[in-house]
Amino acid sequence: MTTPSILPVLQGRYSPLRFNRDHQLTEVDIETLLEAARWAPSAGNSQPWAFHLRRRGDTGHGELVDHLAPSSRRWAPDASVLVVNLAHHEVDDSGTQYSEFADYDLGQAVAHMTLQAHAMGLACRQFRAFDLDGLHDALHVAPGWRILTMTAIGTADTGDPPTRNRRSIADLRTAGFALPA
Amino acid sequence: MTTPSILPVLQGRYSPLRFNRDHQLTEVDIETLLEAARWAPSAGNSQPWAFHLRRRGDTGHGELVDHLAPSSRRWAPDASVLVVNLAHHEVDDSGTQYSEFADYDLGQAVAHMTLQAHAMGLACRQFRAFDLDGLHDALHVAPGWRILTMTAIGTADTGDPPTRNRRSIADLRTAGFALPA
Repeated sequence: MTTPSILPVLQGRYSPLRFNRDHQLTEVDIETLLEAARWAPSAGNSQPWAFHLRRRGDTGHGELVDHLAPSSRRWAPDASVLVVNLAHHEVDDSGTQYSEFADYDLGQAVAHMTLQAHAMGLACRQFRAFDLDGLHDALHVAPGWRILTMTAIGTADTGDPPTRNRRSIADLRTAGFALPA
Repeated sequence: MTTPSILPVLQGRYSPLRFNRDHQLTEVDIETLLEAARWAPSAGNSQPWAFHLRRRGDTGHGELVDHLAPSSRRWAPDASVLVVNLAHHEVDDSGTQYSEFADYDLGQAVAHMTLQAHAMGLACRQFRAFDLDGLHDALHVAPGWRILTMTAIGTADTGDPPTRNRRSIADLRTAGFALPA
């Protein structure tokens, strides 16, 4: 069987290794990215997500950069915007569950934002190389919410896209089961 | 500010209340949906996802239907295919973590599959109304893997799409923080 053809925005998306440090996003661009995330599906329409965004040059961008790990500090500050992705796990800090699908649904919302970015000629790289606890405190994250990842969004620096490798379709259908599915 | 314009596939997607029970998916359709999921991004390219799919009429479809809750049994069997979405949490049952982003990344892969389906004229409804433990045993889910959700995919039954409501963009930027962000 030949490889099935999928939506170009799904096929062409990739996570760039470096960003163009001269590119600027407008406030309308930011609202468009949020609008895409906003329409993601979620369990019971719980929408257990929030986003903290700071463009390069904005007040507060330096605070995000200050919490990057050495590995991400080499490339993430060049992105046009840094986005902190948060999931709503508990109603407050009492442990009462808000959504057991908070991480899963945040992933869906970030996927929407990522694909919208790609359609706008941008590229996204999600990462976890930052001081999670320090950033949590610096941003005054509310009880019940958790920072999960950050996304750097901008235009990809010139150069060929990195090689992308994935498990086979057959493996997606058989992994996860102790007996052949 | 006017509402930003986003990709039609993101704007137009919705979760139908009912499916057309006469529609059939081909095996190529199934491979195309998996191909879309396959190219989702994940933490360190861990790809912590697996999918068990059975079309209406396939051997094994009845086994999935048998585990539906009364609420989902009213509509999910009409879908052209039922998909069980699994995340890889541990290397084995020893508790050694495989990916702390398993749920989040599975959400991204399911979002990819959902958007590809929409682009093919199909619609998806994700749900959790099933006997999780019973299905886990029936499918012989491997150690370290967890069933998270199911997706019903098919053509939406006629009738107007359900009204879709979402939190405002402003709320996405301020919820999650104890102080104004």
